[in-house]
Amino acid sequence: MSTAPSFDLDHHGDADASPGLVDLAVNLRPGPPPWLAAALGTPPDWVAYPDPTAAKAALAARHGVPAACVLPTPGAAAAFTLVARGVRARRPTVVHPQFTEPEAALLRAGAQVRRVLLPPPFTLDAALVPADADLVVLGNPTNPTGVLHPAERVRALRRPGRVLVVDEAFMDFAHESASLLGPREVGGGTPDLTGLLVVRSVTKMWGLAGVRAGYVVGDPDLIALLAAQQVPWEVSTPGLRALSASATPRARAEASAIATRTDADRAALLSALAGAGFPVPHAMTPGAPFVLLDATAAGPRVRERLADRGFAVRRGETFPGLGPEWIRVAVRDAATSQQFARVLGALRREAVEASSSGFGHVHHQDSARG
Amino acid sequence: MSTAPSFDLDHHGDADASPGLVDLAVNLRPGPPPWLAAALGTPPDWVAYPDPTAAKAALAARHGVPAACVLPTPGAAAAFTLVARGVRARRPTVVHPQFTEPEAALLRAGAQVRRVLLPPPFTLDAALVPADADLVVLGNPTNPTGVLHPAERVRALRRPGRVLVVDEAFMDFAHESASLLGPREVGGGTPDLTGLLVVRSVTKMWGLAGVRAGYVVGDPDLIALLAAQQVPWEVSTPGLRALSASATPRARAEASAIATRTDADRAALLSALAGAGFPVPHAMTPGAPFVLLDATAAGPRVRERLADRGFAVRRGETFPGLGPEWIRVAVRDAATSQQFARVLGALRREAVEASSSGFGHVHHQDSARG
Repeated sequence: MSTAPSFDLDHHGDADASPGLVDLAVNLRPGPPPWLAAALGTPPDWVAYPDPTAAKAALAARHGVPAACVLPTPGAAAAFTLVARGVRARRPTVVHPQFTEPEAALLRAGAQVRRVLLPPPFTLDAALVPADADLVVLGNPTNPTGVLHPAERVRALRRPGRVLVVDEAFMDFAHESASLLGPREVGGGTPDLTGLLVVRSVTKMWGLAGVRAGYVVGDPDLIALLAAQQVPWEVSTPGLRALSASATPRARAEASAIATRTDADRAALLSALAGAGFPVPHAMTPGAPFVLLDATAAGPRVRERLADRGFAVRRGETFPGLGPEWIRVAVRDAATSQQFARVLGALRREAVEASSSGFGHVHHQDSARG
Repeated sequence: MSTAPSFDLDHHGDADASPGLVDLAVNLRPGPPPWLAAALGTPPDWVAYPDPTAAKAALAARHGVPAACVLPTPGAAAAFTLVARGVRARRPTVVHPQFTEPEAALLRAGAQVRRVLLPPPFTLDAALVPADADLVVLGNPTNPTGVLHPAERVRALRRPGRVLVVDEAFMDFAHESASLLGPREVGGGTPDLTGLLVVRSVTKMWGLAGVRAGYVVGDPDLIALLAAQQVPWEVSTPGLRALSASATPRARAEASAIATRTDADRAALLSALAGAGFPVPHAMTPGAPFVLLDATAAGPRVRERLADRGFAVRRGETFPGLGPEWIRVAVRDAATSQQFARVLGALRREAVEASSSGFGHVHHQDSARG
């Protein structure tokens, strides 16, 4: 259990990465393929003010919905500000642990936010969500827990008078298997989007976080409320090009192949972690390109000691519902994962030795400072 | 005088440009020079989340202010949303005619906005600004009028308890001559920024409107309020690179040379317009890369008739304080300006003939529909 009294909602994984360390803190792939990079264009193509028409049409076609159900945004994170400003809920509820920006955006907009804290193994319990919540925000697959909630269980949160916001920023890594937008919904015609807003990102899969490109698919009445809060020309031309390029059949096929490789890499990471004494019972395949693990057995100050050995991981204590014993680790290639698990195993043996030689108490004080 | 009962604040010049027409509606230069385009980087440089530190430092150095006085934004337009949400003024006042986004942003944020309407020749009369206004927004040089207010007259609007926001998006075209940030202020040490927010753009001068890059320089306490309203990673990596590249001595020297050429091109446009019977008494040199002219003498439906002859101009009637008789014309090369003036002169002769043959009344009805 976390003992932290408050959470730095503005902390993100990029602040945990440092030059010279193997970056397991940031969930980005290493960059776009050449055909996608080329699709972004070059500066002469970016003279004019950006026009989102083509990107909207491409995304609408991909998801089998009318263009009025789609809103390009400058990154998925920006979508939550539009939700907070546009929906104006009176009893918003955020299901934690999750990406902290939805709550931060609601707080910036002056909302009073209620938190639902899912305990390990972090599976969704609809009974924990207050019945009178008129806005519910949920991540799927969830950052940072990696848990993929079944689509039926997510859909069960919908009810009249409530807006359900599902952050599917990592759903392409989960083979779209639990997306409220498909694949089954697309196969069966237009998905039912009443009261629903699904937030998507293209910059995790395609390694383009610097470009800021994401979008929302949902109830056209809600999309109109979000659009009314947008700044003119909110998404840049390269961002819009990235959205269009991500929506093609070629891009979808390549994303699917990457998700399959990620499944294998995740299995290798989980196996190595279990072998080092760190099982991750809540980790799921298919799921996210990261895992959240309880590093208590590695002893105190685990991030600092991992950094000393060359690895940057994402801290847990800025996520409501988690504490400093939790770390989030990106799924990389099997060799990197095995090296990391060996180091974590070495920290565990150190912790056992320190504890048996009576230094456990001192370490515990250090932890409170860290 | 305008007879329009309301104004479409969300209309911008890009909506008045059409393929196939000579674009005099949009105030953008034709694209960045190669050294600036190269500075933006390519997709492999945009994998990571954007970090504004370097851009802030470069802009702070350019303007001779601490980094805490600088806030990069995704375009100048986006800055007004941060002002509207961050400053939370009770009696905001917008000096019109001006760029409509500051008022639109205040309205989106739920504010009640008071308008000051400057009559032709659109010079600033501080006595028109209510004494109790706690937020005053002014453009300088002003879009769409092209008027450059003397720095002393703008500074005279400052007072305790009031935030003064000056939109200097086009000030680089005016040789910085009336900027509240310099050049005199920079030469004389750190400018006094108390209660002041100066909004700047780099995408007009450098032809990069698709990238979304601007910034605010001002009172560090106010800058902190604006920053608290920003979305994480609000400015993209190419946008931040554009800001850094615009702040170098090389860029400043090139901007100054472009402003000098613009002065000559503006003189040619004004001369051609006057010769065609359209003097623009309020146009100023140095000033903006556009002029606002009263096209009454050209007869009704002037935009449609100009489009029939191949020219797109920016409509006036969406600017509070103006009506459909006003059009904004971009400063292009002298040959283009002379062609345009010839066409406008031909419209004027048409109007005289129509009027003398008794069709004036019919045309007037058409205008009300247009």
